[in-house]
Amino acid sequence: MRRPLIFVTNDDSYRSKGIELLVEMMRKLGDVVVVAPTTQQSGKSHSITVNEPLRCHKIAQEEGYQAYICSGTPVDCVKIGFNMIMKDRIPDLLVSGINHGSNASINTIYSGTMAAVFEGCAVNIPSIGFSLDCHKSDADFNHCIPAIEKITKDVLERGLDEGVCLNINFPEKEIKGIKVCHQAKAYWNEDFVERKDPMGHSYFWLTGVYNCMDEDNGADYNMLSKGYASITPMHVDFTSYKVLDKYKTRFE
Amino acid sequence: MRRPLIFVTNDDSYRSKGIELLVEMMRKLGDVVVVAPTTQQSGKSHSITVNEPLRCHKIAQEEGYQAYICSGTPVDCVKIGFNMIMKDRIPDLLVSGINHGSNASINTIYSGTMAAVFEGCAVNIPSIGFSLDCHKSDADFNHCIPAIEKITKDVLERGLDEGVCLNINFPEKEIKGIKVCHQAKAYWNEDFVERKDPMGHSYFWLTGVYNCMDEDNGADYNMLSKGYASITPMHVDFTSYKVLDKYKTRFE
Repeated sequence: MRRPLIFVTNDDSYRSKGIELLVEMMRKLGDVVVVAPTTQQSGKSHSITVNEPLRCHKIAQEEGYQAYICSGTPVDCVKIGFNMIMKDRIPDLLVSGINHGSNASINTIYSGTMAAVFEGCAVNIPSIGFSLDCHKSDADFNHCIPAIEKITKDVLERGLDEGVCLNINFPEKEIKGIKVCHQAKAYWNEDFVERKDPMGHSYFWLTGVYNCMDEDNGADYNMLSKGYASITPMHVDFTSYKVLDKYKTRFE
Repeated sequence: MRRPLIFVTNDDSYRSKGIELLVEMMRKLGDVVVVAPTTQQSGKSHSITVNEPLRCHKIAQEEGYQAYICSGTPVDCVKIGFNMIMKDRIPDLLVSGINHGSNASINTIYSGTMAAVFEGCAVNIPSIGFSLDCHKSDADFNHCIPAIEKITKDVLERGLDEGVCLNINFPEKEIKGIKVCHQAKAYWNEDFVERKDPMGHSYFWLTGVYNCMDEDNGADYNMLSKGYASITPMHVDFTSYKVLDKYKTRFE
């Protein structure tokens, strides 16, 4: 039986500790193609590079393993990976991460890690994002290994429902268990820090404080805070179906 | 009675024809604050600027009207607008656009126009994105005016359901009617165009072809293609609720 083909990417760049571990783990489970951003792409969400060209270079090739770096965003990496590098073979799985920082709750929409996952999901490839609730560049990911292996093997064997992908977040330390959750309702409250340049002109740094408005135990952020790994099944459909009929009456 | 406060932004930059018309229309309905990107931000999705500082300048002030330009993305513009410029008064409405190009279907997730709308929606401000199915910089928006006025007045009066925003797309020419739709299932099939720089090194341009996989008449792209204006009610929640219980059994 042919080994499965696993596509690996992230948003922290190819040099991050999180992707190094993920690649090492995936190489035990299948053939691996990595296309990762050359530089840090945190907060790049689903952005694509349309007004400037992309550069892409192969940095490693061994039996069952190829790695490339790409000058663009995580979504650019997926597009280049699927349409240029892997165009003769559709990957069996896309994994993104392990992100240095949680992508639970509203963070999903800002996340480059999850954007790559959505891009895979949009073309019907089983796709999983892995994130750790710790931003440190030397974060310890070892306690996540058993859960990542178990979930990845399960998805390689049984796939995911059509149009569904997974957003998986791990607590910084010991994992109490796994909980399947919904995205917690929350927002970031921004505080701009003003500085002056040497010419006396103002510039601003974006900083923010996370506000959770969801007290439900089924919400990903809440379970993560309590020490559980959260799995949020997601899809690429923003439609609010619950108001569809009501708004037909109102607006048509 | 105090005039409503309307926040206007877009992703095509403050100099685009679409935002000029939208500002003109909104000034008839309320006090207006504009914070628009200094430069073109198409395809920037929900990205935020975290690794470099932002610049922001006031470019106009009259009775009931202020306009600013911001060096960042559409989401940066909303964050700066809400948390710095308008921090003493919460806007009654956010409008984004009118975008030069459709944001129906999968385009939603790449769109800076809709990202601004989601950012408003996340903090519970009624938010609407307007887009025209034509990319030309000198596109004609006049046929959209009556529908924009009608919908905007309706939302100013009656609000929107909590957590719901609107993605509204207009056909390039005459509007046959208004249809409330779901987001069409589709994807972009990319084709990278390779060029060589003067040093002989390759670089790539991202180009793509839209593939609609949704034949349902209730899908926004399909209605738009038939000459209707589409209204897709949306929310900022990626959770796939339909598999939640099944995946609890599978993964917990």
